[in-house]
Amino acid sequence: MKTRLRIFAPATIANLGPGFDVLGLALTAPGDVVEAELSDRPGVEIAGITGDNGVLSRDPRKNVAGGAAAEVLRRAGHSHGIRLWVHKQMPLASGLGSSGASSAAGAVAANELLGRPLNQRELLMSAMEGERAASGTPHADNVAPSVLGGIVLVRSYDPFEVLSLPVPEELRAVVVHPHCKVSTAEARTLVKNRGYSLDHIVPNLGNIAALVLALCRNDLALLGRSIDDRLIEPLRASLIPGFSAVKDAALSSGALGCSIAGSGPSVFAFASDDETAMRTGAAMQAAFKSAAHLESDLYTGKVNPTGAREV
Amino acid sequence: MKTRLRIFAPATIANLGPGFDVLGLALTAPGDVVEAELSDRPGVEIAGITGDNGVLSRDPRKNVAGGAAAEVLRRAGHSHGIRLWVHKQMPLASGLGSSGASSAAGAVAANELLGRPLNQRELLMSAMEGERAASGTPHADNVAPSVLGGIVLVRSYDPFEVLSLPVPEELRAVVVHPHCKVSTAEARTLVKNRGYSLDHIVPNLGNIAALVLALCRNDLALLGRSIDDRLIEPLRASLIPGFSAVKDAALSSGALGCSIAGSGPSVFAFASDDETAMRTGAAMQAAFKSAAHLESDLYTGKVNPTGAREV
Repeated sequence: MKTRLRIFAPATIANLGPGFDVLGLALTAPGDVVEAELSDRPGVEIAGITGDNGVLSRDPRKNVAGGAAAEVLRRAGHSHGIRLWVHKQMPLASGLGSSGASSAAGAVAANELLGRPLNQRELLMSAMEGERAASGTPHADNVAPSVLGGIVLVRSYDPFEVLSLPVPEELRAVVVHPHCKVSTAEARTLVKNRGYSLDHIVPNLGNIAALVLALCRNDLALLGRSIDDRLIEPLRASLIPGFSAVKDAALSSGALGCSIAGSGPSVFAFASDDETAMRTGAAMQAAFKSAAHLESDLYTGKVNPTGAREV
Repeated sequence: MKTRLRIFAPATIANLGPGFDVLGLALTAPGDVVEAELSDRPGVEIAGITGDNGVLSRDPRKNVAGGAAAEVLRRAGHSHGIRLWVHKQMPLASGLGSSGASSAAGAVAANELLGRPLNQRELLMSAMEGERAASGTPHADNVAPSVLGGIVLVRSYDPFEVLSLPVPEELRAVVVHPHCKVSTAEARTLVKNRGYSLDHIVPNLGNIAALVLALCRNDLALLGRSIDDRLIEPLRASLIPGFSAVKDAALSSGALGCSIAGSGPSVFAFASDDETAMRTGAAMQAAFKSAAHLESDLYTGKVNPTGAREV
């Protein structure tokens, strides 16, 4: 049993267009790193945080990595102590599952340190419990792909059931993170506490079903047509300056489909090869700049096949 | 080119639990038969209707089979006339797509008589146009499986796109039609013009996605867990006397899952073999009788692989 290790957990794209709160995809980069070591002091201690500009709490009950590690300890029935260092290597409040990546890394680090006492389901539930510190309610659409890799479906929260979907080999993800902030809480408030009509629900049912079929059939054109969200995107688009121009730029550049990553402001697109992915990313960055005077970061790559892993 | 033919089009189960307005499945029985012959009189004439107890209109603009055949003529640009005889061999207002089966049979009969001028998409749109006479708005979740057979997903109405899903070989459908009436219009009014919360939408997104995955993976246990409708079933269950007891009886008998067929009052279940299907059907019939004093008809069988066909 190691007494110290480092875990990288990737950023993720939640929702993937029609799949609000149930679909998520793991990126190859960026992501967060959590270092962990066994300690004689019971419970979880946050020994250090880097890369957060001082905004994250070192109180282990208010820190997602700490909360996740504490839940692993609790479920495993261990009286060990764990000391954590959290290295934020991705933007906060970006829509890319920053708190989910830290939660995933914290949970996996604790589970590995203790010799893997938890099974996959318990591990995911521990990571979700960590995320509760960030969002108030546990969600799995970021933590599940960050832990497991690939493209993940949360079929049900009660009982909790997560399913890994097939990932087409040619699929490339493009993510552009504009330098502006959308708070997850604000983005959730905007879409909660309102009624949705069947005119908007039915297209999302059709598109999420087609999206899963497309993944199973390796049909990238169908996957692209299925990235069509009539429920949430029309509401949240207003929080992202230049969104409409950025989406147009992506689709004009040959992207298969384009929508908001999680609660935004990042915008993602899918492409079927590296060249189209790069061209799409450049066009999206140019559109953020010309339409909203926003600088941005670009990430492109394959879907992350492994999820959280020791580095 | 034949000058007279008979087409059987099967009854269908729309919605399949979580897939309101987008999923449908073709049954082997019951279904409707439409006889058609070329005539010298332009347009469509309804020469006779049997099995409807006199309730269906013989005005071809108000009769779904007539409307569908007329749309085929219009799309094909033919000046031919077509004479139809409609043989209702399944209950009206049962939730089993009675008007969809007649529309499908009318459209396919006309297309066959004219030498197949329409492609599959045009044929489906013609059948949908027929259904408009019954429901006021065109829907495809009954006509598409009735025409095509199998299990069908309507990804989108605009643009119109229908996708056939894989059908597990072992899957058996059980349908119980209680002898009471639910009007499609009443059942639609109950669910339209209201707002749905994300708490009810998100589970349906997760379940319809899992349902498609289950069909692709041939995973009948997952298919059963996915037959879980939080949006529509809780509202429409109130229109079906004894529904809760019938569903409990189905699940207690080993059914994989159970929900309302279309707008009801028929209730469907899935099973993984003939013996369980028969036992489930008998238990559901007994529950309708004991809980609501309702006699019922039972249909069990494989999914219909061919859809509308000449007989």
